Amino acid sequence: MSREKEVTRLSHQIYTHEEGLELQCGQMLAPLDIAYQTYGTLSPDRDNAILICHALTGDQYVADPHPITNKPGWWARMVGPGLPIDTNRFFVICSNVLGGCMGSTGSLSICRETGQPWDNDFPAITMHDITAAQAKLIDHFNIKRLFAVIGGSMGGMQVLSWAANYPERVFAAMPIATAPYQSAQNIAFNEVSRQAIFADPEWHGGKYRVHNTLPARGLGVARMMAHITYLSEEALTRKFGRRMRQNSVPAKENDLPLLFDGMFEVESYLRHQGSSFVKRFDANSYLTISRAMDYFDLAADHNADLAEIFRWSSTRFCVISFSSDWLFSTMQSRQLVRALNRAGANVSFVEIETDRGHDAFLLEEPDFDRTMRGFLRGAAAHAGLKETYHAG
Amino acid sequence: MSREKEVTRLSHQIYTHEEGLELQCGQMLAPLDIAYQTYGTLSPDRDNAILICHALTGDQYVADPHPITNKPGWWARMVGPGLPIDTNRFFVICSNVLGGCMGSTGSLSICRETGQPWDNDFPAITMHDITAAQAKLIDHFNIKRLFAVIGGSMGGMQVLSWAANYPERVFAAMPIATAPYQSAQNIAFNEVSRQAIFADPEWHGGKYRVHNTLPARGLGVARMMAHITYLSEEALTRKFGRRMRQNSVPAKENDLPLLFDGMFEVESYLRHQGSSFVKRFDANSYLTISRAMDYFDLAADHNADLAEIFRWSSTRFCVISFSSDWLFSTMQSRQLVRALNRAGANVSFVEIETDRGHDAFLLEEPDFDRTMRGFLRGAAAHAGLKETYHAG
Repeated sequence: MSREKEVTRLSHQIYTHEEGLELQCGQMLAPLDIAYQTYGTLSPDRDNAILICHALTGDQYVADPHPITNKPGWWARMVGPGLPIDTNRFFVICSNVLGGCMGSTGSLSICRETGQPWDNDFPAITMHDITAAQAKLIDHFNIKRLFAVIGGSMGGMQVLSWAANYPERVFAAMPIATAPYQSAQNIAFNEVSRQAIFADPEWHGGKYRVHNTLPARGLGVARMMAHITYLSEEALTRKFGRRMRQNSVPAKENDLPLLFDGMFEVESYLRHQGSSFVKRFDANSYLTISRAMDYFDLAADHNADLAEIFRWSSTRFCVISFSSDWLFSTMQSRQLVRALNRAGANVSFVEIETDRGHDAFLLEEPDFDRTMRGFLRGAAAHAGLKETYHAG
Repeated sequence: MSREKEVTRLSHQIYTHEEGLELQCGQMLAPLDIAYQTYGTLSPDRDNAILICHALTGDQYVADPHPITNKPGWWARMVGPGLPIDTNRFFVICSNVLGGCMGSTGSLSICRETGQPWDNDFPAITMHDITAAQAKLIDHFNIKRLFAVIGGSMGGMQVLSWAANYPERVFAAMPIATAPYQSAQNIAFNEVSRQAIFADPEWHGGKYRVHNTLPARGLGVARMMAHITYLSEEALTRKFGRRMRQNSVPAKENDLPLLFDGMFEVESYLRHQGSSFVKRFDANSYLTISRAMDYFDLAADHNADLAEIFRWSSTRFCVISFSSDWLFSTMQSRQLVRALNRAGANVSFVEIETDRGHDAFLLEEPDFDRTMRGFLRGAAAHAGLKETYHAG
């Protein structure tokens, strides 16, 4: 995979910030690379930019094919001309998070001091660091204020960090299927993921690249488990139920041989999810980013009540949750909304009814699309944006 | 650990059924060992026996200290003189399930044909096989009809198998925190457990005993993940929240070093759960039994609607669920109750309000205890049992 990575690496669009970034842990990262994709046209006033923040295992390829998997962008149904995030009107920026493995500075990058890739020595980062790195890219575009910052799951944590750390730079914020802090249950699931990776003999204490191996099984197990948490029991039952897939042996007269020789479809599906994931993701990067999620606690980061953080904010918020999401439940979105209300912030809240769990934010959900389109249209009118912007 | 196992094995109380048992897969297991514990006194009419069925990682030590961990029995608060399952009145039998690793025939047993332990060649078993093995033990006691069969989680699956397969032998049945079939989500979690074990380099294709190793990390990861599913988000938040435990480095002026050098208490707790589990449980046994759970689908096993199975049953059912249990949800208990009602069976149903998740059935829950005591008292009156039975 590492060769493939180097090949695709060449095609990433990267902004290099030579001065680098001082991390919350105190370490200096220089230079700082931020890989990104853009869609649409930046307006002459530079006021129509939307920053889309990706989730734990996402990347900057939000609306064009993934260079490794060749699959459509992870939000191709949401971002494009005439789509809810309309690239005829908005200039969309999506960057690979700091610590990621798709071109931004992370475990695969070369450490200037040692001349070697960071591997597992990449410093601990926080959601604050991730947004600070994005801000360097936004500076590079000479954009003073983003029209909107939008993201789901860990992307939503970045949205909240942006709104908290750079309130004057965020006109509208859309935290989706997220929470103002990582819950104990989510830390617990992440910890199991980490232990699964550490248990892999190909892990080599994080130096698997030097040993020319990959902790593919451990990372696969981590992904399989995480994938269950992205779905709902209803979705799993509807998609797979207890249906079996035969392995090799032909069915005999009673159905027990099928039972014993076959596997459940849900197992086959999860194995596929695990094995395809390891082709496109780096284990050290997974560890760095999942840890940054665990550290996330917006109120504690600001030594304040959640409401205090947003007391003077003029950002327009639209908080979205999904009824069957048990990883980032509606209850957690409500905590956020209550805090925003206490702060007197401009906030709307929509819980989308769906049985597809956390993953729903990536799927076809007409109510969600309508909410996205309506919120952006209303906010754009308030911001005085034109209907379309075209280059040249 | 294997030496330890052999030592403790000596102290298990075992009934050996020389004729053996023909499994659903067609294989003959002979002889059949069933390790068990009993509490209380069997009445002269042999009509006061309660069979308690344990969960996936439970064993026969329901009310006395565990021979490996020395911890109190897993239901010591429920089973004993004057307790809800009152051993002054009832004769309690609890046996290690077929496929288990505490003395009953399973992966650690010697295969008669090869003279070697079964290890990972132990045949696939079902809930039907597990209850058929228990029935041999009940025959050995010359008990025609059990006063009650009681069990939680996988124990509840056994209760339902007993009531379906031996209706005339079950006066009362108490399926607790269980379901009439293993759900797709639960199969999915079990599959991740299995993959975690398979990924361990000490697994050696299941022949770890021969290699004198243990797939301790893989089994530990499996247990950690399973443990999350036994709790609720509320319970995890209440017990641990986002509190941190410092590793080694003393706290510095700002709190980030603690964040980066410490670990969350929930992580420390899960690691402990994982590492203590592997001291008392065999990985091959875990695989065999978790697979038996996945196979469980009561209606399919009987080629029938669930209600048809219980159409002529005179068993008195008390179905119990816990409001925050998301592994075996109230919804699944309701499916069972509706089927029992359609069958015209004698059934009561109680959902216990608690925020402690699936684990609640093992914990101090006063409403649960009252329900248990009340149901058994009422059923005992109908069965014409005396208030106490004492030996001699």
